[in-house]
Amino acid sequence: MISLKTANSGLCLTFGKLTVLQHGINNPCLSIGRGQGTYSMDRGNFTIEENLSEKIPLTEYEILEQKEERVIIRFSNQKLWAVIVEFIAKGNFLEVMFTDESSTKQNRLWIRMTAAHDEYIYGCGEQFSELNLRGKKVPLWVSEQGTGRNKKTYTTFQADTAGKGGGDWYTTYFPQPTFVSTARYFCHVEDSHYMEFDFRNPSYHELAIWGIPPKLVIGTAPTMLALLEQLTGYLGRQPELPDWAYDGVWLGLQGGTEIVLAKLKKAQEYGLKVTALWCQDWQGKRITSFGKQLMWNWQYDQNMYPDLPETIRRLNEKGVRFLGYINPYLAVEGHLFKEASEKGYLVKNKAGDDYLVVSTTFPFGTVDLTNPEAVEWIKNVIKQNMIGIGLSGWMADFAEYLPTDAVLFAGDAEELHNRWPALWAKANREAVEEAGKLGEVAFFTRSGYSGTSRYSTMMWAGDQMVDWSLDDGLPSVIPAALSLGYSGFGISHSDIGGYTSLFGVKRTKELFMRWAEHAAFTPIMRTHEGNRPDDCWQFDSDEETLLHFARMSKIYTKLKPYLKEAVKENALRGIPVMRHPYLHYEDDKELSTLKYQYLLGRDLLVAPVIEENKESWRVYLPQDTWVHLWTGQEYGKGYWEVPAALGFIPVFYRKSSPYRGLFEEIKEI
Amino acid sequence: MISLKTANSGLCLTFGKLTVLQHGINNPCLSIGRGQGTYSMDRGNFTIEENLSEKIPLTEYEILEQKEERVIIRFSNQKLWAVIVEFIAKGNFLEVMFTDESSTKQNRLWIRMTAAHDEYIYGCGEQFSELNLRGKKVPLWVSEQGTGRNKKTYTTFQADTAGKGGGDWYTTYFPQPTFVSTARYFCHVEDSHYMEFDFRNPSYHELAIWGIPPKLVIGTAPTMLALLEQLTGYLGRQPELPDWAYDGVWLGLQGGTEIVLAKLKKAQEYGLKVTALWCQDWQGKRITSFGKQLMWNWQYDQNMYPDLPETIRRLNEKGVRFLGYINPYLAVEGHLFKEASEKGYLVKNKAGDDYLVVSTTFPFGTVDLTNPEAVEWIKNVIKQNMIGIGLSGWMADFAEYLPTDAVLFAGDAEELHNRWPALWAKANREAVEEAGKLGEVAFFTRSGYSGTSRYSTMMWAGDQMVDWSLDDGLPSVIPAALSLGYSGFGISHSDIGGYTSLFGVKRTKELFMRWAEHAAFTPIMRTHEGNRPDDCWQFDSDEETLLHFARMSKIYTKLKPYLKEAVKENALRGIPVMRHPYLHYEDDKELSTLKYQYLLGRDLLVAPVIEENKESWRVYLPQDTWVHLWTGQEYGKGYWEVPAALGFIPVFYRKSSPYRGLFEEIKEI
Repeated sequence: MISLKTANSGLCLTFGKLTVLQHGINNPCLSIGRGQGTYSMDRGNFTIEENLSEKIPLTEYEILEQKEERVIIRFSNQKLWAVIVEFIAKGNFLEVMFTDESSTKQNRLWIRMTAAHDEYIYGCGEQFSELNLRGKKVPLWVSEQGTGRNKKTYTTFQADTAGKGGGDWYTTYFPQPTFVSTARYFCHVEDSHYMEFDFRNPSYHELAIWGIPPKLVIGTAPTMLALLEQLTGYLGRQPELPDWAYDGVWLGLQGGTEIVLAKLKKAQEYGLKVTALWCQDWQGKRITSFGKQLMWNWQYDQNMYPDLPETIRRLNEKGVRFLGYINPYLAVEGHLFKEASEKGYLVKNKAGDDYLVVSTTFPFGTVDLTNPEAVEWIKNVIKQNMIGIGLSGWMADFAEYLPTDAVLFAGDAEELHNRWPALWAKANREAVEEAGKLGEVAFFTRSGYSGTSRYSTMMWAGDQMVDWSLDDGLPSVIPAALSLGYSGFGISHSDIGGYTSLFGVKRTKELFMRWAEHAAFTPIMRTHEGNRPDDCWQFDSDEETLLHFARMSKIYTKLKPYLKEAVKENALRGIPVMRHPYLHYEDDKELSTLKYQYLLGRDLLVAPVIEENKESWRVYLPQDTWVHLWTGQEYGKGYWEVPAALGFIPVFYRKSSPYRGLFEEIKEI
Repeated sequence: MISLKTANSGLCLTFGKLTVLQHGINNPCLSIGRGQGTYSMDRGNFTIEENLSEKIPLTEYEILEQKEERVIIRFSNQKLWAVIVEFIAKGNFLEVMFTDESSTKQNRLWIRMTAAHDEYIYGCGEQFSELNLRGKKVPLWVSEQGTGRNKKTYTTFQADTAGKGGGDWYTTYFPQPTFVSTARYFCHVEDSHYMEFDFRNPSYHELAIWGIPPKLVIGTAPTMLALLEQLTGYLGRQPELPDWAYDGVWLGLQGGTEIVLAKLKKAQEYGLKVTALWCQDWQGKRITSFGKQLMWNWQYDQNMYPDLPETIRRLNEKGVRFLGYINPYLAVEGHLFKEASEKGYLVKNKAGDDYLVVSTTFPFGTVDLTNPEAVEWIKNVIKQNMIGIGLSGWMADFAEYLPTDAVLFAGDAEELHNRWPALWAKANREAVEEAGKLGEVAFFTRSGYSGTSRYSTMMWAGDQMVDWSLDDGLPSVIPAALSLGYSGFGISHSDIGGYTSLFGVKRTKELFMRWAEHAAFTPIMRTHEGNRPDDCWQFDSDEETLLHFARMSKIYTKLKPYLKEAVKENALRGIPVMRHPYLHYEDDKELSTLKYQYLLGRDLLVAPVIEENKESWRVYLPQDTWVHLWTGQEYGKGYWEVPAALGFIPVFYRKSSPYRGLFEEIKEI
């Protein structure tokens, strides 16, 4: 029910118990304007500037219609600027539609939503540095997440000076104009222009949108869990994972059939549970200044993987799947580039030529995902060259690099830049479904936006530094997963050990082991050799690591029934597998800003050790009876310093859990 | 004569031959708005952000009056927003007055002035990194200039992470809302709010002002020199320097009477011409983490300099002056702080207490220069404690740190922040004049703004890094002097060898010698031991340096009659002593962007060696007959690689110079 109060020439609109907007001549809830953005891209890193030519606060209003389920207000300023805002209540949803009726076409909208002093804000897609966004201004633009991501670190400085690649706390592959408030509402903007959500003001949240969004959706619910269920009902949820997914590690190997099979053999000899080999170089590779890089021509490399379909068949017989790699780009040297180019399936530049972009080191073309024929074509590549040869899944990488001045088959690149990841996920998903393989084949995406939660089957956290840094190392993958959960995406994991080894940063044995321990308590356990495998400690770099990793794989595999249920809950209700504990303990304010511990499903509380050289770790437990997984000791609410030697990540289960028996078996592994 | 053309609902205003404004409904020349700035200061380094609540393009206009000498136009948008603009022609000046007639008070104004494609822009105060500002957006805010000043250097990174002190290419002690165009006009905004001058657009210059300026002044002239004469006639010029100023080096020494006199003796034994000792620690010192720092209590230190007046008398008898140091702050430990605090002469915070600010390491109060009694008081401190004991001059340091939330005796700190340097220079100037010492006593300021050119007697370039970096080392002092010249300030110099030694950067022998060679061809030759004297090569660090420096002091002294004439020309006509060669060779486009060579007076072209390990140097000579100072070889127009061994800075004189005889004597020194 919408209610509207007017007083002192001001206006207050509530939806149920939620105050949505407060408006007055000195605090107008809407402004409209015109501006021009410039987006300069350097390998997926964007510098965005605005030239704002007008910003008009819409101080006047006129109520055109006022019913319980529908309110229409015309906000205006003088005769020239006006926006019709239509509020429609549909159950727990409030839809807010905007129609610009200004005399000149406007392309900026600022919306001020009423904020409460004690509100915390989560979501905005995958946020690596912050979980609670109150007090922050959050730019929402799909991009590389950056190397270092903290302007105070030397790594970031080096990445910035080497190629503007340092990033910042908010840079992300997967932003989303969606936030969830502890005042038990969510807000989602149905638009994909560049936006900034400003949560710094004590009395309002200001959403600045570089376009006039057709719609904004607000949802309310009595609990945070119900709210997520409602949000994901609207945005779409991820399907369940294939059953094989949980049967061991997804082992990231490279180098061709011989090397890969030899490593698998050794791993299995040490007791490592392997459910899949993930060979990103299935389509060939190249050596560049960045490291070992892939070929980007989406068919199997007959030199490195001769008769790969046969190899896959044999592996499958032994219960091991084979996974590959793809992205929406085509390296210019490849036959697929030539074919796509000839057919006109590539994104064009203003001169009408194929728009060649450079990623780290080499140029590529971009499949035009707004062209239905091009989408069919790339889906066929996936169906024939990937599913067709027996791949059970793949990394569906990238999609952040669409230049805003690109010329598309349909639509405007500035507006579609943010949508590109969802279009990319949709193409992958449809290929899987059309091949009849949903539930058997899974792909994992890095980039995302609204729509990704409906199309992708899982996320991974992208390219972390192989270090302990809060903003770009092991710690960062935890808030990343939790903020994704708040944004409607509930299945994510990360490269065990991280990916980026640059500027002398190398993956250590301890980092690998701590990351592996964390990964054992996530939906998926997958390794990556990193961009410079020789600079990175690997699962098989020594015997101690192999044995440790094998034990972790057994623990993970043991959790299968528990994980499956959590994944099912995500598919049915949108409750993320890795979830912010606050979701189950809403009365516990202490939890609202803690971002480096999580619940895995309902009953496991995991507090990964994210610093070097620790023998114990400080955790916070909410009101419950918690049993320490490794010692069986019981704990209640509060902060506790618990033992945390290597191999014994702080994990607690709820004493009342139906999986208590299973959890008790873990300590024997 | 002002002329106004209207066509297609647009408007074009010209002043003489200059097109000043072009206005149309789609390219309005004025916008007005409201916003709120936040200025966070960390030891003189500012982070400035804006919350803009409205920006209204004033698309409509009405001509209220149209005469040749006076035009009044009302620019507006709907009924709510209007600015009356009055244009008055007074000879070569066009005054433009703004009156906001909007229904709500506005505090932002954007002015778009017509730009020509081939225009170069100079000025905006003291710019250390850029001379030509076309293509740049220039923020105008008095601040520390920063350490490193280039976000790509490691020094800047370290300074930023250590305390937000890295600066950027535009950060400066002395910004000024004045620019000079090669289209032979200047533009000066009579206002001191934060501004941004945006010269990036090919067809207009946009001046964004965080206030409604009462007036903007445009001047035109047939030549660049005439233009500077006109500009400085308006802004005020600097008086001539005392005659003693040119009689040798102003030797920066510290440590108390004994140490200072011993160093002087040694220097003179090596033939160094010393016209003044500059002892910044005349008022005592303290040791801090930053280095050796001063006491900031403005009276002579009886421990370090017992009976300083008598020492000064004796030095004067030997032809050596004594110079001190002051700034507008008072360290809390000093008796002057206590006195000023008791009398209510200090700037207050919002709680009504003295506003204590920290510079590098210790807290201080700020004399309230808007309080006439406080000004009289600090002037008396200068007259009694400084001029009264025989000082012939001083460094009048700082004045960049006025916090925008300070509470002043009169006026608004956000508006007066930029004016503070001029108020500080004015107090110093009045103290000198009231003591009857103008022409005998000289002070040198670091900070500046509009008004400084009228009050200060000379500038120095502030705290360079003791290195070769373009943005903050030796090279940077050249564009600094040239841009000052374009802004109406014609006498400046720099610390020989630079000042800032941090992050392991130490002053080398070669840097000291190259800097000294440059300084010999500037109005004043003054040394500074640096913030960490022990980390910096000094004039007496070895015999070779002493001899080299002594020779430079003789060359400089030899130039006295030539320099005096140049300084006089600056006093009379505002032609800067160090000047951009373009001023005399307006047809030579090549000169318009060269920023590391200069004319000293009319006849000497100086191209300092600003890189390490050079034996020769590339110079550009405009159309003239140039004689190489050291070899007598003649050169014509063009680029030349000339010998440039240590001790032989590339300098050329015009063959037709009346000082030719004097110049020829120099090579014998």
